[in-house]
Amino acid sequence: MKSNSVQVLTGGVLLLLASCQRAPTLAVVDPLASWNETTAKTAIVQFVARVTAEGGSEFVPVAERVAVFDNDGTLWAEHPVYFQFAFALDRVKVMAPDHPEWTTKEPFASLLKGDIGAALAGGEKAIVEIMMTTHAGMTSEEFEQIVKDWAATARHPKTGRLYTEMVYQPMFELLGYLRANGFKTFIVSGGGIEFMRPWTEQVYGVPPEQVVGSSVKTTYEVRDGKPVLVRLPEVNFIDDKDGKPVGIQMHIGRRPIAAFGNSDGDFQMLEWTTSGPGARLGLLVHHTDSEREWAYDRGSPIGALERGLDEAAQRGWVVVDMKQDWSTIFPAQ
Amino acid sequence: MKSNSVQVLTGGVLLLLASCQRAPTLAVVDPLASWNETTAKTAIVQFVARVTAEGGSEFVPVAERVAVFDNDGTLWAEHPVYFQFAFALDRVKVMAPDHPEWTTKEPFASLLKGDIGAALAGGEKAIVEIMMTTHAGMTSEEFEQIVKDWAATARHPKTGRLYTEMVYQPMFELLGYLRANGFKTFIVSGGGIEFMRPWTEQVYGVPPEQVVGSSVKTTYEVRDGKPVLVRLPEVNFIDDKDGKPVGIQMHIGRRPIAAFGNSDGDFQMLEWTTSGPGARLGLLVHHTDSEREWAYDRGSPIGALERGLDEAAQRGWVVVDMKQDWSTIFPAQ
Repeated sequence: MKSNSVQVLTGGVLLLLASCQRAPTLAVVDPLASWNETTAKTAIVQFVARVTAEGGSEFVPVAERVAVFDNDGTLWAEHPVYFQFAFALDRVKVMAPDHPEWTTKEPFASLLKGDIGAALAGGEKAIVEIMMTTHAGMTSEEFEQIVKDWAATARHPKTGRLYTEMVYQPMFELLGYLRANGFKTFIVSGGGIEFMRPWTEQVYGVPPEQVVGSSVKTTYEVRDGKPVLVRLPEVNFIDDKDGKPVGIQMHIGRRPIAAFGNSDGDFQMLEWTTSGPGARLGLLVHHTDSEREWAYDRGSPIGALERGLDEAAQRGWVVVDMKQDWSTIFPAQ
Repeated sequence: MKSNSVQVLTGGVLLLLASCQRAPTLAVVDPLASWNETTAKTAIVQFVARVTAEGGSEFVPVAERVAVFDNDGTLWAEHPVYFQFAFALDRVKVMAPDHPEWTTKEPFASLLKGDIGAALAGGEKAIVEIMMTTHAGMTSEEFEQIVKDWAATARHPKTGRLYTEMVYQPMFELLGYLRANGFKTFIVSGGGIEFMRPWTEQVYGVPPEQVVGSSVKTTYEVRDGKPVLVRLPEVNFIDDKDGKPVGIQMHIGRRPIAAFGNSDGDFQMLEWTTSGPGARLGLLVHHTDSEREWAYDRGSPIGALERGLDEAAQRGWVVVDMKQDWSTIFPAQ
């Protein structure tokens, strides 16, 4: 494209109007190319058209075009285990040589033998111990580097892809489409805020200041004249369920007009978003594709979707059928 | 200015290159017009030139140009009492008819008699009680409206100006100058996050998602089918001193390259900001003008500046002498 060309973004198409010496050319590129022409795509495009139509009754100023996205199961996959839990398990292996006591201490002993089921027999207490051991005790900058190194090398057990290549191409397109229409896009995830920030800008185009998530307490110290932020093994905030609207208010300070999730952990975020005045969009990604991805909803230990399915129709939320609505799941490698 | 004119921002001057039928005209407007030509202004302009010089050794990409500003005493005045405390006192008067018990209950009884000194004899406990009574118990949306109504009408006891007209013109220009040079500007204040957000976008051009402050705990409820966020009378986070770097990490997720404060409550924010690698700017506003504003530093009950003054030189921080460095304090009305 020549540098003096003009990009005009309209409801559903990207028009590239190239100005050149020859006769003008017109290329039409669909910014939502991985979305099949079904009702889900129509609902998204129509919502954006309504809130961006200047002079229209549902016009929303750019500053108020806030869109929030869950991460696990909405922007990237979450099976067979949450990727952050896979990170924690990898960390246990890396840290084990410095912890000889783990060979006999649960839940680490079972983890190191590869028996995740036995490790998790300890329930929530075991999970919290694994998470705190692997996510706290270092500085924020050290943790950032640990996550970056892991994200650059760790691979998904089923696909062999980097975990950051397990993002959903249609959702990636949706992020860009909304931004091109003046939206500010935020991640609002139950995952760790500091686990996501090291790679969300590069992978999703979402900068750290637009990431909301769960967190541990942090303290400021000056060590040998050098200031550091130290991550403590104590929960600060859980950004899930009722916590999502609270996290949104804390970090964003205004109610979004569009919310995207996939599980009942996102229910309150969609409820809060879509109960405001004016045009609103709530959307749930329903995992229906056991061949290209995974199929799960009711009763799933990860990403259960039950109340959301029951109430989506009456609340006017869009339910995306991954198998029917998405022509592509993961980006080309 | 004609619509086809071009704005070119350089280190210290805004060039308006107007394209028109007549001979081209060149207007030079100083974006820091209220800053006298002293070392403080030079330090600001040179810092911005260094981090924005493409190809230079100290160039900082736009995404990393994060600047943080304290509010009380840095962006707006803070005498004779923090304006948020004036808001709380006004709220006590408004709420009094619904609280007949306050006529005999301290600290409210003294406040309603106009005796602030006696009310504050109860120390921190009295202050917390006044703040929690006036800042909690309602929904976030109700509180936002209360603050908006107050900000639109309440006036400073000395100047008769609206409190939002007690902002510092030179700092307002500095916010705009940094933004014009690709910086994202954040407020990081000990004041209440929800007390600032209702007016910071209009007054400073800082949107709610770029405001960091102290907060009360909030809970999500559905009342008669309508979701609300309820402000609880319990401290969630104090964004002051050691808390400022923690608040920065929580909300912004990267270390700023420029920090602006005025009191020892900002010390750690400047320390954290200026101890990172590359070009950094730390700046303290020193209140030296008893005629046009107020003069205070050591031992002041509000906005005390002691350690900052002692260590500014060795840390390379700029100390603004309001009397000498600012040609204007408050904006023209």
